[in-house]
Amino acid sequence: MNHIKELMENVKNKTPLIHNITNYVTVNDCANIILACGASPIMADDRLEVEEITAICDALVINIGTLNERLVESMIKAGRKANELGHPVILDPVGAGASGLRTETAARLLKEVKFCVIRGNISEIKTVYMGSSSTRGVDADVADAVTEHNLDDTIRLAMALSKETGAVIAITGAVDIVADSKKAYAIYNGHPMMGKITGTGCMLTAVTGAYCAANPDKILEAAAVSVCAMGICGEEAYKKMNENDGGTSSMKMYLIDYMSKLNDKIIVEKVKYESKD
Amino acid sequence: MNHIKELMENVKNKTPLIHNITNYVTVNDCANIILACGASPIMADDRLEVEEITAICDALVINIGTLNERLVESMIKAGRKANELGHPVILDPVGAGASGLRTETAARLLKEVKFCVIRGNISEIKTVYMGSSSTRGVDADVADAVTEHNLDDTIRLAMALSKETGAVIAITGAVDIVADSKKAYAIYNGHPMMGKITGTGCMLTAVTGAYCAANPDKILEAAAVSVCAMGICGEEAYKKMNENDGGTSSMKMYLIDYMSKLNDKIIVEKVKYESKD
Amino acid sequence: MNHIKELMENVKNKTPLIHNITNYVTVNDCANIILACGASPIMADDRLEVEEITAICDALVINIGTLNERLVESMIKAGRKANELGHPVILDPVGAGASGLRTETAARLLKEVKFCVIRGNISEIKTVYMGSSSTRGVDADVADAVTEHNLDDTIRLAMALSKETGAVIAITGAVDIVADSKKAYAIYNGHPMMGKITGTGCMLTAVTGAYCAANPDKILEAAAVSVCAMGICGEEAYKKMNENDGGTSSMKMYLIDYMSKLNDKIIVEKVKYESKD
Repeated sequence: MNHIKELMENVKNKTPLIHNITNYVTVNDCANIILACGASPIMADDRLEVEEITAICDALVINIGTLNERLVESMIKAGRKANELGHPVILDPVGAGASGLRTETAARLLKEVKFCVIRGNISEIKTVYMGSSSTRGVDADVADAVTEHNLDDTIRLAMALSKETGAVIAITGAVDIVADSKKAYAIYNGHPMMGKITGTGCMLTAVTGAYCAANPDKILEAAAVSVCAMGICGEEAYKKMNENDGGTSSMKMYLIDYMSKLNDKIIVEKVKYESKD
Repeated sequence: MNHIKELMENVKNKTPLIHNITNYVTVNDCANIILACGASPIMADDRLEVEEITAICDALVINIGTLNERLVESMIKAGRKANELGHPVILDPVGAGASGLRTETAARLLKEVKFCVIRGNISEIKTVYMGSSSTRGVDADVADAVTEHNLDDTIRLAMALSKETGAVIAITGAVDIVADSKKAYAIYNGHPMMGKITGTGCMLTAVTGAYCAANPDKILEAAAVSVCAMGICGEEAYKKMNENDGGTSSMKMYLIDYMSKLNDKIIVEKVKYESKD
Repeated sequence: MNHIKELMENVKNKTPLIHNITNYVTVNDCANIILACGASPIMADDRLEVEEITAICDALVINIGTLNERLVESMIKAGRKANELGHPVILDPVGAGASGLRTETAARLLKEVKFCVIRGNISEIKTVYMGSSSTRGVDADVADAVTEHNLDDTIRLAMALSKETGAVIAITGAVDIVADSKKAYAIYNGHPMMGKITGTGCMLTAVTGAYCAANPDKILEAAAVSVCAMGICGEEAYKKMNENDGGTSSMKMYLIDYMSKLNDKIIVEKVKYESKD
């Protein structure tokens, strides 16, 4: 992975403003981790202001974690405006597949808005893939947890979806995949305990928004370094949790703490990944 | 209290999925404590998806802490669907009595949805009792704080409401009462400092949802062990807060931490309760 | 600053109930810091209940951080009711200036509701000032960060807006200004790292609501001591964050912790301010 230092410095030097239309479960953690990584958050979700808000921002993050009809309209309005202005738009299709509303909203967003990154777990990404092209289906051999065993299948899925949507695809799990249509990274950072905190996925998507805003011409690298950064924060948070005889709530705090203390030297030292061209 | 070990193991082994239609104040803590106790949360509140979401879950928790008309419709739709599927449904009538909207919504929910547990403070439970049968009134001698002094009156109230609704009634305060129409537990765990954190009641209701989901044939015991677990976490969190010269925000973190570290041996060792048949 | 001890004791002895119509980003922290300072929060935002809820409370805090049309109606209804009952009403015009919806809502609220305190950063306060009297404009020499350099201009702005609205004006930044039409305080407590946590402004406004509720006849002093208290908590939280090798999320926790441990002796010892008559 190249440019790690430059990618991080761009976030810290530009302090980009990130417009979030997101869920009310993890919104506070998303705002705080955006600040922690060096950017600045704005949450605004009403149709009467989303276009204006997105216009003063540097990127838009759309997260469908607690959807309702009012929000869908706002997401589409904001997404179109951000596209018009050339701002990076990032999608987190939380729970796509769990309900018609989520699956259809993800499909509709993909149709009406051009995303530069789509980040989800393998089930969400599969749903997005099928939703956007339902006649093709998806490889049933891609199991629902990404492991070293099915890595190649998952990478093929990510690359195919990237080709179709034009977005970088980030599939997070035991191993994380970040891919465009030509190149993929398999990232081995992170800790299973991150799954015991609500919002690690949402927070990662928010950080990805910050990195893309500051590095709009290096989206693949920006998404990949965000995934590495979050994974490393998870590893370090887990260590500190154990040292302090803490539990899952401590771990969440240490994770955001670590994001606020992260620098490129730490990432370069701790990152574990492979390039797959 | 019997079956503590089995009740806890069922949560951890089944990792039930809990559908929450809840308030936006404490929603993140509720999601995190559900994860901490071994279950998995989904928050979804729109009428377009609540039936589908509740269908893939193992229990439904309805919390009226920040009501609006849109949510009331969703609560009723989800509640009916959960009833149809035989899923446990838990009610937290937050602030019932404080406004007509809350009192009437609690009454309407009780009319349209069958609950397996209703958890509130004494004022909320009294309101529910009067609202569901306003001609009967409620014993004016039951003071607004449950203490050892008025324990028997409170137990009678809980048992009468349980008989009327078919739900286990959990009344939390200085002493906690968990009762069905035939049997009651008086639980002495907990710490007054828990009242200085927003959401300890909401979190307890969320944990109760997890325990009921994993133990649908032992609702009284599931509710009682949830109350004990939360009380013990509060006691331990208070101790750790003092050791670390912390304040109320530390205490909240330690409380969720402790829930993620709790096991049946700790509960059996620390639980303080009496059975009242 | 006089009466610090009395102002604090009034909060702790009266434990006033504070009605908050606020944003969903920082709502949990606002509820917890209201509890931490000795008061009690209620969050309620639906038009069907806001008048009843505000009637049982001692003050109303309106925060426009995540606006929508439904909330605007509720804010106005609650504000009028609180005015009718003589309850202190506090405004936090979050993001006024960032969108027409926010700017117009701030202006409309100022027209329809009488506020006792308006708290914002200098950009928000300038927007409020222009919005409420757009023909007059605002001194362009008042730079967007309040420093010792432009202190006198900022104080003049605060006093003029106070004269126009009848509200105490609190402008927070590197230096904080709290002023009515005749008297101003410049407060030097706080730490730049507070800007790396979302919601320190919202939390301050919530605490101000608590202090005004308990001290309705000393609004200027109540607002000023709230600003000092928050600044001191930020300073102490920063120290503890460093001692514990923490980051921004730890700092947020320590800040709320410190509010729960604050007393008048600590404030008197650590407060740094000047009176400007």
